[in-house]
Amino acid sequence: MDGVFEGKKGKKLKDQKGYTLHFGNIIRDGRVVDEVLVSLFRGPNSYTGQDTIEISCHGSLFIQQEILSTLYEAGAEPAKAGEFTLRAFLNGKIDLSQAEAVADLIASENKASHELAMKQLRGGYSEKIRQLRESLMNFAALIELELDFSTEDVEFADRSQLQILVKHIVQVVDALLDSFAMGNAIKNGIPVTIVGKPNAGKSTLLNTLLKEDRAIVSDIAGTTRDTIEDELVIDGLAFRFIDTAGLRSTSDTIENLGIDRSYAKMREADVVLYLFDARTATSNEVKSELEAIQSAAGEGKLIIPVGNKVDELVSGDYSSRFQSLNDAIPLSAKTGIGIEALQTRLVDFVNQGRVTETLVTNARHAQALRKASVSLNAVLHGLELRIPGDLLASDIRDALNSLAEITGEVSSDEVLGVIFGKFCIGK
Amino acid sequence: MDGVFEGKKGKKLKDQKGYTLHFGNIIRDGRVVDEVLVSLFRGPNSYTGQDTIEISCHGSLFIQQEILSTLYEAGAEPAKAGEFTLRAFLNGKIDLSQAEAVADLIASENKASHELAMKQLRGGYSEKIRQLRESLMNFAALIELELDFSTEDVEFADRSQLQILVKHIVQVVDALLDSFAMGNAIKNGIPVTIVGKPNAGKSTLLNTLLKEDRAIVSDIAGTTRDTIEDELVIDGLAFRFIDTAGLRSTSDTIENLGIDRSYAKMREADVVLYLFDARTATSNEVKSELEAIQSAAGEGKLIIPVGNKVDELVSGDYSSRFQSLNDAIPLSAKTGIGIEALQTRLVDFVNQGRVTETLVTNARHAQALRKASVSLNAVLHGLELRIPGDLLASDIRDALNSLAEITGEVSSDEVLGVIFGKFCIGK
Repeated sequence: MDGVFEGKKGKKLKDQKGYTLHFGNIIRDGRVVDEVLVSLFRGPNSYTGQDTIEISCHGSLFIQQEILSTLYEAGAEPAKAGEFTLRAFLNGKIDLSQAEAVADLIASENKASHELAMKQLRGGYSEKIRQLRESLMNFAALIELELDFSTEDVEFADRSQLQILVKHIVQVVDALLDSFAMGNAIKNGIPVTIVGKPNAGKSTLLNTLLKEDRAIVSDIAGTTRDTIEDELVIDGLAFRFIDTAGLRSTSDTIENLGIDRSYAKMREADVVLYLFDARTATSNEVKSELEAIQSAAGEGKLIIPVGNKVDELVSGDYSSRFQSLNDAIPLSAKTGIGIEALQTRLVDFVNQGRVTETLVTNARHAQALRKASVSLNAVLHGLELRIPGDLLASDIRDALNSLAEITGEVSSDEVLGVIFGKFCIGK
Repeated sequence: MDGVFEGKKGKKLKDQKGYTLHFGNIIRDGRVVDEVLVSLFRGPNSYTGQDTIEISCHGSLFIQQEILSTLYEAGAEPAKAGEFTLRAFLNGKIDLSQAEAVADLIASENKASHELAMKQLRGGYSEKIRQLRESLMNFAALIELELDFSTEDVEFADRSQLQILVKHIVQVVDALLDSFAMGNAIKNGIPVTIVGKPNAGKSTLLNTLLKEDRAIVSDIAGTTRDTIEDELVIDGLAFRFIDTAGLRSTSDTIENLGIDRSYAKMREADVVLYLFDARTATSNEVKSELEAIQSAAGEGKLIIPVGNKVDELVSGDYSSRFQSLNDAIPLSAKTGIGIEALQTRLVDFVNQGRVTETLVTNARHAQALRKASVSLNAVLHGLELRIPGDLLASDIRDALNSLAEITGEVSSDEVLGVIFGKFCIGK
């Protein structure tokens, strides 16, 4: 680097300490390419754990290209996608789940997904899993020791202690696994489907919701309408509205829709907003349509009936006609009446779903937890049947491997390639 | 800043030296917004001359927005466009022409414009103008002193010495002024018009040229075909090809074009490429068309006749038929014959035009130099006519002010507003 960088007063970078900044010139063939600022880091106290420099240059593509050429000529190699974070992982600066958190953090677009990523970056459930895995490993070692003495029929590992431990681990693993549905929804946006008759006011409702929340992200360039399309952030939570265009052009009642695609979209959603026209709908109609939606959407969904256009009703009309529908929200997409109540309902649903402090947001982790759960249950089953130690040991090994995949204590080049390939270059 | 930044091991930024880096957390309402790296600079050894920090955070819009909000809440004000460079100017870190060079440097897209900007950033002709201005200022002071003694008819300022000095300054100013045409062309791309009959092969020639040179800028994302459109960089010099679409759809000979727009474009250009079909054109036709182009394009232009499609001629045919056109370039846009000769001709033209080491590239500077030249010539004229000292002093003041505008020793808020308004935010 000192071949291409000329510090002020002849300072050499190689003589400088880490965590310092240096102003000087990048030189190529005796010509000054740019005046730059170099940030110098010394391993192991750097992101990757190795000596690192960062160059801040003037913001011209031509200059960037000239500097890159200068560095390549001096023998530098361009980093591959995610190479810095991969090196940090390989040098033991962070574990695999923290590396994944870096990617999540960069992709985070709202407070909730940001908090989840930040928690994972700072350790998250990695440490917990590491501890559980270690205690299980001790048992595995004892059982494998028994195998060396197989002719003598000894039991070094206390089977009832093992059972207690494995039951505890299964509990933890299953709780984490349960949190994945919500964790994933928070990370990618909670899917909400709006259904209703063509003139119920779906578009107006979406626009009203969008208008109120889009302002939050509008003071930074680049957050254009295109990129967040139909995503709303309410109280820091992202809601992803799923288009049910197919519903718009159909006949009178929801029961008669018969469009598989729309049913599928209701099943995909965590929340279904059923919008009806409060001027014309009757309480019985709404109830029967809600039942149809309930059976189409499946279990565990929040279904919110919303009576739109109440601004066009005379006072008291809505409450007398829809008295029996006490969970419906009277709303006017046009004037904004009821919008806040609807937002509160959506946010409360998510917050009630966040029963655990820790949420799994990563599909790879969920898959590893699923495999661990299967192996652990096999261990429990084996203990009940008092199967031989070598079979038990094999199931425990499988569980240990699955748990280790999360933190990367066991990892293959292929897995690393998939994870770090998703990073952009320079991270 | 120490309210929102929490350094590792409780380090406080206010206790740290300049040119150091600090890893830590940005805190908002007790919550960690991001792990960041803070670069700390202490005035006067910073870009602006004041204490400055830079925050490097994770690359998510959400995080950037959260950090900005945190800083605004703590009392920070967002910088206006160009505010950092404006402060550097106001604090005497750089002069106005250097500040303008920063903008030019960022906008530079090729080696030649980059070199010009870099030269200006490192002082350029500012220093020369400052020196000349100072010696002229001494004379102005002496002449103004004479005015205090006006009843006594004394001459403190040696008129013949003043004349020698002013003549020298006029020479320097005029040379700089002359360099502006080329400096401006190099900065913005040397304008080249291609003219010729519809089937002469203009598009093929452009494509062949583009293909060869585009590769230079292709390894950085963002330099798409759209942005450089018809600009070619040859040997680090930008050539801007001006569309003469109007020519394409016209009759047989250039003389008959009669299209004002096309004439205007030839006059705008520094170079006119006249492309003819070497298979069908005759030497006399080409000569008469060249004469027409010459009178249409005006003086000081390079006109290059190019005989295209020589690949379809039998050996010796071209040289026997176009013997008398010894400055024409035989070429085949299809096979690439003659392309290099054409490029060399273009580059040589520009390099021969760069007679001085220093080129003025800035239109504002050219305007100031023009005004200075007028005032200085008035001074010379006044000296010849032996006009009274007070009139002489007024012309000298005008010249001094015009020269001072370049470096910003004299500047109005309006001028500063125009210059720094062109900068992007954060510069």
